[in-house]
Amino acid sequence: MFYLGVDLGGTNIAIGLVDEQGNILHKDSVPTLSARPPAEVVDDMAALCRKVTADAGKSMDDIAAVGIGVPGLTIDETGVVVFATNLGWHDVHMGTQLGRALNKPVHMDNDANVAALGEVVAGGMRGAKNAIFLTLGTGVGGGIVLDGKIFSGTHHVGGEVGHMITVINGEPCTCGNRGCWERYTSATALIREGKKAAQRNPQSLINKKVAGDLDKISARTVIDAAREEDADAVQIYRDYIEALALGIINLINLLDPEMVAVGGGVAAAGDFLLEPLKACVASHVFYKDAPHAEIVLAVLGNDAGIIGAAVDAMNKENA
Amino acid sequence: MFYLGVDLGGTNIAIGLVDEQGNILHKDSVPTLSARPPAEVVDDMAALCRKVTADAGKSMDDIAAVGIGVPGLTIDETGVVVFATNLGWHDVHMGTQLGRALNKPVHMDNDANVAALGEVVAGGMRGAKNAIFLTLGTGVGGGIVLDGKIFSGTHHVGGEVGHMITVINGEPCTCGNRGCWERYTSATALIREGKKAAQRNPQSLINKKVAGDLDKISARTVIDAAREEDADAVQIYRDYIEALALGIINLINLLDPEMVAVGGGVAAAGDFLLEPLKACVASHVFYKDAPHAEIVLAVLGNDAGIIGAAVDAMNKENA
Repeated sequence: MFYLGVDLGGTNIAIGLVDEQGNILHKDSVPTLSARPPAEVVDDMAALCRKVTADAGKSMDDIAAVGIGVPGLTIDETGVVVFATNLGWHDVHMGTQLGRALNKPVHMDNDANVAALGEVVAGGMRGAKNAIFLTLGTGVGGGIVLDGKIFSGTHHVGGEVGHMITVINGEPCTCGNRGCWERYTSATALIREGKKAAQRNPQSLINKKVAGDLDKISARTVIDAAREEDADAVQIYRDYIEALALGIINLINLLDPEMVAVGGGVAAAGDFLLEPLKACVASHVFYKDAPHAEIVLAVLGNDAGIIGAAVDAMNKENA
Repeated sequence: MFYLGVDLGGTNIAIGLVDEQGNILHKDSVPTLSARPPAEVVDDMAALCRKVTADAGKSMDDIAAVGIGVPGLTIDETGVVVFATNLGWHDVHMGTQLGRALNKPVHMDNDANVAALGEVVAGGMRGAKNAIFLTLGTGVGGGIVLDGKIFSGTHHVGGEVGHMITVINGEPCTCGNRGCWERYTSATALIREGKKAAQRNPQSLINKKVAGDLDKISARTVIDAAREEDADAVQIYRDYIEALALGIINLINLLDPEMVAVGGGVAAAGDFLLEPLKACVASHVFYKDAPHAEIVLAVLGNDAGIIGAAVDAMNKENA
């Protein structure tokens, strides 16, 4: 049998037809247009499910179930998206509606959670039983896989790694608390510190790279300047890596996973991120004489969500 | 069948005969005398296992297995205590030796982990599937129970809650890192801050309670002075509760357990600890509209380790 994996994003809905081993046979996408009534979004989702299936040369009879990764909080048992802030959704019965439209079982989970499962099934953490996926973007998202399955806790709200407090009384966060890990480890953090440095030191390479237009500073600007050994950028990037490592150490000391994968925009830095990160984790982990998680780059990009959503549906149907 | 639960401490070895429901039918203890060769400690442990069984009116044929909670890192599969710092042990084949002496299966796990299981089976977190136990003593220990079983991760080193970094570049910790949670939330933290306040302000009630002998300041001294509304003590205790709450919030945001129990010396403060702690957690948790873990006091004291070790052995035998 085959499964449809849906990556519901703020901009696009991407859907793939996935086999039982986690391979995408065919995929396609349509704009989300999330300002519309949610029912219209679900209609487009159903239509794309049918199209992807047909374009893959399969029929809906070949589809065992559909999985959706949602940028928000879902309750799979009731088919409800409790909220998805980027979509402006509250209490949308998406699972129920899509299930009725396709006459298939539909399962939902958080997008970072399904991406974690995708990286375990077919990506950078292939074969790991216990694994954590981190996505370093505008914020920091994460997903936990335990014993080969998504772990989201008792009320489905676990895995919120980005809001782990790593500096009591630290930088104010959008969540209302202070010192959340993502304040120091998101792309946004690199941009914020890059801007400060460019203002403080107009001779900084960061400033030169954007020709003085500070609004053009991206995470990549800072990382590239660090690669070129600009003193300000090197310091910012060193602090960034240390903050990232210390949070990963918290996760390792707590959950002792087999692997940790880092993805998202900042992870495009590749080995320039991975190598100092691994060194910093190894030198600060609590049990220095015991083995600890292997840290790797995520490799699937957006496909992680499609594959993970499909495999999550498969796991739940076979549970 | 019955199980023997062993709580191996730095001072005493406590052993109880436990039924399948987690009730202690009879218990006894002997001094550990940990400066001796470990084999002698194991001999005393075996003798006490036989004595407790006989004194409970049972025979060794009634015993299905033995479980041991160890203040250190163990590998249950090989029967080895990798290290137990308080006992000065490294690579002690305790599980193998006790198993041979009693001709019974022996299982081992970390003492805080088995105490967590004890509180779930028969204590303050009875019935919870996912639960976290915290012990606020000289340091801060913890154990995680997921799906009714001890969760210690891939290499058995998970659950190290006390060394979660909550203040990057914060107070130096004995582990070599800075800003570990236990620097702010152990009894030691209350004593440290109490001493500072007493030095700064000789009129402080903290100072009066120990008649100026700062070495006599205990966690209880500070807590009692806070109850009596001494300004210094109130501030110290408020900071303490906030630091404790923020780390619990990290655990909730990450693992979303059903219950969290606090035990250890500081938890003797009872509702004077629990009520402000619950309020602080509720006001800072990430998903404020979703339910979150109930926070309770641990109730079993040292019995948690005996019961948890016995039930852990039962779980592993029945796995």
